[in-house]
Amino acid sequence: MKGLRKITPYVPGEQPNYSDMIKLNTNENPYPPSPKVTEALKNFNPESLKRYSSVDNFELKKALSDKFKLSPEHFLIGNGSDEVLAFCFLAFFNSSDPLLFPEITYGFYKVWADLFHIPFKEIPLKKDFSIDLDDYRQNNGGIILANPNAPTGLFQPLEAIEKLLSENADVIVIVDEAYIDFAGKSAITLLENHPNLIIVRTLSKANSLAGLRVGYAIGNPQYIRIAESIKSSFNPYSVDLLAETLATAAIEDTDYYDKITEKICQTREWFIRELHAVGFDSLPSKTNFVLSTHPKLEISDLYQHLEEQDVFVRYFPTIERLQSYLRISIGTQKEMASVLTIIKDYLSQLR
Amino acid sequence: MKGLRKITPYVPGEQPNYSDMIKLNTNENPYPPSPKVTEALKNFNPESLKRYSSVDNFELKKALSDKFKLSPEHFLIGNGSDEVLAFCFLAFFNSSDPLLFPEITYGFYKVWADLFHIPFKEIPLKKDFSIDLDDYRQNNGGIILANPNAPTGLFQPLEAIEKLLSENADVIVIVDEAYIDFAGKSAITLLENHPNLIIVRTLSKANSLAGLRVGYAIGNPQYIRIAESIKSSFNPYSVDLLAETLATAAIEDTDYYDKITEKICQTREWFIRELHAVGFDSLPSKTNFVLSTHPKLEISDLYQHLEEQDVFVRYFPTIERLQSYLRISIGTQKEMASVLTIIKDYLSQLR
Repeated sequence: MKGLRKITPYVPGEQPNYSDMIKLNTNENPYPPSPKVTEALKNFNPESLKRYSSVDNFELKKALSDKFKLSPEHFLIGNGSDEVLAFCFLAFFNSSDPLLFPEITYGFYKVWADLFHIPFKEIPLKKDFSIDLDDYRQNNGGIILANPNAPTGLFQPLEAIEKLLSENADVIVIVDEAYIDFAGKSAITLLENHPNLIIVRTLSKANSLAGLRVGYAIGNPQYIRIAESIKSSFNPYSVDLLAETLATAAIEDTDYYDKITEKICQTREWFIRELHAVGFDSLPSKTNFVLSTHPKLEISDLYQHLEEQDVFVRYFPTIERLQSYLRISIGTQKEMASVLTIIKDYLSQLR
Repeated sequence: MKGLRKITPYVPGEQPNYSDMIKLNTNENPYPPSPKVTEALKNFNPESLKRYSSVDNFELKKALSDKFKLSPEHFLIGNGSDEVLAFCFLAFFNSSDPLLFPEITYGFYKVWADLFHIPFKEIPLKKDFSIDLDDYRQNNGGIILANPNAPTGLFQPLEAIEKLLSENADVIVIVDEAYIDFAGKSAITLLENHPNLIIVRTLSKANSLAGLRVGYAIGNPQYIRIAESIKSSFNPYSVDLLAETLATAAIEDTDYYDKITEKICQTREWFIRELHAVGFDSLPSKTNFVLSTHPKLEISDLYQHLEEQDVFVRYFPTIERLQSYLRISIGTQKEMASVLTIIKDYLSQLR
């Protein structure tokens, strides 16, 4: 057969579905979406589904525009930040110079670069897993960074990002802010002076809407327009009418989400302290997950033990530097207390 | 700025939204989705949205599997048939030989070929707008046909499709069956003997779910797997949890959809006859739209007149052979009677 494409796809975390499981492997939010989302769902008229949804997603753009005090033309809406990122890769990274991104980061960057035949170069992290942006001072066709980075959870100060933007004014720099709500400081303040900046966000994490698939990019309208033209050349209606309606309700309810985000951050700090008390080292996280290791443990054994107790966390056996780490999403306080008890019991049995 | 992509996107029909309009410009279904879809929506628990949807869309694949008596591995699910087609283009059309498709067909084929740098060749239609598959007997890297074709509405007999599949056994042949439910005969019976066949379908037309964005491909598992690997390399969760749940309810309710499809086909035949009685020529349609012309009318004037009466139909001024045609979607019997009255009044005023 002629013309078949061979490619190694992205491998997402498993989606087990047991009634009593504690699911901490894909950085989902343990709290339900806003009550306003529930209300919007209740009021939704199913007959409206017979028509195509709006191509421009104006309602949602309007809500984002109000939230961020930027014109609607600053936003591109997509089916999750994955689709938004894929459109941005197609729109902005067409240079013969390599796209730069960290060696350890969201695993999908490499997959999109492969899929679209974009030359790329992975830049090693420092020994402490931090990103040194001076390492990016080299010939490139664009840069993409997750800030905070995943799966490390580390946050890059905005001053360093601003310097990067100035030094690379002739290419697009994407800052993937999937986890920004959990304590990071958004690069959105840099947009005004740096037209080469594109910020990508998702409603999957802080907004408890992973199953709804809505994400967006924020950027200078002249570049957002180019990403829109890619969207219109691929799948113009990718955000369905229900998704747009519910996402709009979510974006409008800042109060509710501020409250659950605060709870998650408190649980995270508590969990890191408690892990530390039993010998774990964790990276200082600005996200809803924590990357932790224990000097005296075979971490893959702990991973397996947790799974046997129906606790699902993420382990990356194929990434050498992460082989002694687990990435644990932050669930409710009650879930994390249960996990801690299981871990403590495991440790005491080993002694 | 380096690396920016310049592209001419697909231009969908407008989405006007007036309360009294008659919207016949994007081939939507005038009837609401199945009552089972309404019920599924009512029973949907919004809290479940905090989790990612299933990557494999197994529930929907199971429903399709029951409907078509094929294993779940025969199906690829996507965000509308547009996304499914985009994945198939990336998966199957990587040859240096040109992809073949009709010169007048779904306008998106050309846009995807452009977007993915796929060489292509447009094959002219016959004088009567039909496709002569003997014209496709030439060197190629794949073939895509809409059957019935759009915007002509003409149906290609399966015998001709089967011959095409046999003659091109070394490439993938996609048959886009977006409109198949409105009287055509599906190529699905050819799958068993022709592994190079991929059929693409949508829930946007016959299932009244344009705003939900669900489509699927049917094919040999070994090739469906390749398209799945593209999906997993682009946006693995593109069908959200709500969309999957509602689509599954729709696929299971064959009775309701058979009934509304029958009504639409009856209205179509009645409308074509009535148009004929006042001097219009229409192509014999096997879809939920009709392509019509009138030898004594400046068709763009009629188009404008209809729009002034809040009746929206589709006109293709940039396609030379279609400049004297209107493509009119089939609405309810009542809507089509109103449109006919407006057209008759218009004709009598011209006299």
